[in-house]
Amino acid sequence: MNIYFSCSITGGRNDQPVYRSLVKALLEDGHSVPTAHLADENITLQEGIVEADEIYRRDVGWVTGCDVVVAEVSTPSHGVGYEIALAESLGKPVFCCYQIGSRVSKMILGNPSTLFHIYAYNTADDAVENMRVFLKTVENE
Amino acid sequence: MNIYFSCSITGGRNDQPVYRSLVKALLEDGHSVPTAHLADENITLQEGIVEADEIYRRDVGWVTGCDVVVAEVSTPSHGVGYEIALAESLGKPVFCCYQIGSRVSKMILGNPSTLFHIYAYNTADDAVENMRVFLKTVENE
Repeated sequence: MNIYFSCSITGGRNDQPVYRSLVKALLEDGHSVPTAHLADENITLQEGIVEADEIYRRDVGWVTGCDVVVAEVSTPSHGVGYEIALAESLGKPVFCCYQIGSRVSKMILGNPSTLFHIYAYNTADDAVENMRVFLKTVENE
Repeated sequence: MNIYFSCSITGGRNDQPVYRSLVKALLEDGHSVPTAHLADENITLQEGIVEADEIYRRDVGWVTGCDVVVAEVSTPSHGVGYEIALAESLGKPVFCCYQIGSRVSKMILGNPSTLFHIYAYNTADDAVENMRVFLKTVENE
């Protein structure tokens, strides 16, 4: 499937190793991930030189064209919150995950949509496993 | 007008004095602000005891019913990003402001919608003044 991976960039990169594990698993499973580069360690430098209007247009296009959004939400981010709501308004399934113990917005935790799945993980492997189960469900629908 | 005020809660409260100034000005000008309590100093305690699904349902209802969204975006927040995209999908005008020097997501800075206005302020008074100009424009349309 075509999967939009969404994670904090400007808001903080503490969870980058988990971003990398999620994207690695998606690519290994044969999915197309236009935002795979957002899991790179040096992405803040790379994305820092791209104009905001270009990033906005590019990312909205990718969300619009994707089958599923996968979002890591341990670190607060306006962009990720924006993309989750955008995906939802377009009828896309959304998988969200966060490290147990992270303080996550109740606007994320309380979303009752049947297209929205949220998972609190202990380890990156946990998160990957749960994501794979969710994506299988979407593929079989 | 009926104005949905949106600010970081779980993500951090460093900018709470500015939230208070914005909400105070809105109320002084006769607007109705269902989320006025989010500018209170002790809101994290108050909102902490409300269930996530209740906050989600309540806030989505308020965004749906409002005329304009006013968002302070100096501190990253999934909830605020979500509410901005939700408001946009419903055709609501959105006023965003942030303290000069804050690192703001390019998904916010690059939004080209004519309904979306973003302003970088030096002081809370600056932010209030610019917000008032924006709201006058909306009222006169």
